[in-house]
Amino acid sequence: MGKQDRIILDGMGGDHAPAVIVEGAALASWLIDNTICIVGDEKVLSAELTRRKYDAKKIEIIHAEEVISGDEAPVRAVRTKQRSSIVVGMNMLKDGEGGVFVSAGNTGALMAGGLFILGRIRGIDRPAIASTYPILSGGVSLLVDTGANAECKPNNLLEFALMGSIYAEKVLNKRNPCVGLVNMGTEETKGTTVVKAAYELLAKSRDTVGGLNFVGNIEARDVPHGTVDIVVCDGYVGNVILKLTEGLAWSIFQLIKRKFTSDALSKIGALLLSGKLSELRNAFDYSEYGGAPILGVKGAIVKMHGSSNAKAVKNAIIRALPYMKNEVVRHIENAILDLEVTGDIE
Amino acid sequence: MGKQDRIILDGMGGDHAPAVIVEGAALASWLIDNTICIVGDEKVLSAELTRRKYDAKKIEIIHAEEVISGDEAPVRAVRTKQRSSIVVGMNMLKDGEGGVFVSAGNTGALMAGGLFILGRIRGIDRPAIASTYPILSGGVSLLVDTGANAECKPNNLLEFALMGSIYAEKVLNKRNPCVGLVNMGTEETKGTTVVKAAYELLAKSRDTVGGLNFVGNIEARDVPHGTVDIVVCDGYVGNVILKLTEGLAWSIFQLIKRKFTSDALSKIGALLLSGKLSELRNAFDYSEYGGAPILGVKGAIVKMHGSSNAKAVKNAIIRALPYMKNEVVRHIENAILDLEVTGDIE
Repeated sequence: MGKQDRIILDGMGGDHAPAVIVEGAALASWLIDNTICIVGDEKVLSAELTRRKYDAKKIEIIHAEEVISGDEAPVRAVRTKQRSSIVVGMNMLKDGEGGVFVSAGNTGALMAGGLFILGRIRGIDRPAIASTYPILSGGVSLLVDTGANAECKPNNLLEFALMGSIYAEKVLNKRNPCVGLVNMGTEETKGTTVVKAAYELLAKSRDTVGGLNFVGNIEARDVPHGTVDIVVCDGYVGNVILKLTEGLAWSIFQLIKRKFTSDALSKIGALLLSGKLSELRNAFDYSEYGGAPILGVKGAIVKMHGSSNAKAVKNAIIRALPYMKNEVVRHIENAILDLEVTGDIE
Repeated sequence: MGKQDRIILDGMGGDHAPAVIVEGAALASWLIDNTICIVGDEKVLSAELTRRKYDAKKIEIIHAEEVISGDEAPVRAVRTKQRSSIVVGMNMLKDGEGGVFVSAGNTGALMAGGLFILGRIRGIDRPAIASTYPILSGGVSLLVDTGANAECKPNNLLEFALMGSIYAEKVLNKRNPCVGLVNMGTEETKGTTVVKAAYELLAKSRDTVGGLNFVGNIEARDVPHGTVDIVVCDGYVGNVILKLTEGLAWSIFQLIKRKFTSDALSKIGALLLSGKLSELRNAFDYSEYGGAPILGVKGAIVKMHGSSNAKAVKNAIIRALPYMKNEVVRHIENAILDLEVTGDIE
């Protein structure tokens, strides 16, 4: 494997860095063939590594002495901290010294770095964050955008649908994945001005080259049922869907815990069900699903949750492989050219 | 009690009308002192009534031969069907022949009827639908708007906060209820242009006469935790929150059912926990919480879910009493005058 097959991992980003990042890399090193380059303070990372078992052939450390913290102003941080793990890692990606950049760091800095260092894909107006969403059947769907763009224009939503479809096909192994637009009802006359106009664009895109499999409007209740493979909405609504799911699942599990331990009989029942209860919790555990791709820039970036644990880091690294190998970025570049030719995006 | 204390009930609105509506009224008739006027086709309603036990002193039928169905264009329906149960009921409310109008009918027609027949409260630009939301501790919070206004201006969100605060205080018995604005993060610099401007207005309103107890931005994950008493957002986002909660709770309960019946041991566990499991389901059962008030028009309207069962109808009738008795509409009229005096609403 060449340099371009390496996974570049931000060793310093996230609430529990570098410990859980290094731990995640160590776990992944036994499971993959690719080399993981952990970017960050060499001394600190080496010390973390020596404490762990890992496949020494698969892990390298790339020194970067600066760190962009979670609360720094993103654009300024990316411009001034040229020796930060995010900027160093992103430059490696740009220079072909790796095929994907995985980070639990400052989301804004990852977006800014993606835009300034890698650049937007031609024809994509607004890059987006796409998050996997656990559905009832046990699989996942993809939610785009989940926070990069609070306000969107109709063609941004079309771009999200297009990029999400390619990611779902190439990484989540969905065949001819279907797209739904989040609205207040399934009728096409419903919703905000932007959503109504996006509906028109999406409907038209069914007929273009490599057209989208757009099924129409969906209601938020359809999201957990997994009615569609790609759920399209602006970043404000996507953030609401993601955070509410987190909060509500947590609330329901708290309530279950409280109710199931409130008397002796219930405790026995809960004991008999303990295996099933942890399966249930796992179904809503985001660390199972790896990170969220930032789509629309000229390079594969995976954003992990800031509070990721080692399992989440390991899973994000593994999920990053098909994102890189199956050339999602190049497929998006081609698809957007097709759309331009047919005149849907100006 | 006078005519103005009567509860006007739309006998013909909703998926299961008139049967469940009449059943709900019959159940409520034993529990309240007020008279319930059921509006709709006299023959049909009488036939439904005779099949049930009810307190005959408390139920009257008011004839209205037309029905506005769920899929009719609202404005046109209200203008042309003058003898529909919605228009007849709303006119009774306007004429003081009752103190509140409760309906499971066409939401758009209820909004249109509210605007055309009752009229907006002076100073309120956009009436809103406020829905109760079950929270972890066992109570409810209030979500405004949940679907009347897909797009909002900043001052609309301020109005929602004001109306919601009054309803929460007078009907849900919350003292000095606190208001949160749904955003993508708690920092005041986050979110859409409208949300940022609404934040400014809400923050300023803390200092005005009878000022709001505005605690700032909240994330969607805070909603089920009950961090605030009144959750303010536009109708598109409110609809997403309500529908996603419905869909996700349903999904989790489906998953519980599937897991807890997958083997013999689990079935025994589930049997021991069956009481707790139904308590859990009830916590997310919207029929427990009655209907949603339409706030901002010159009369008390309660909108029930279209699929309401008899228990939901009964609960909506009971919840409608403090809405009427505690003069929520008059308190909103006064509060908005106070705000106008201090110049927050133009």
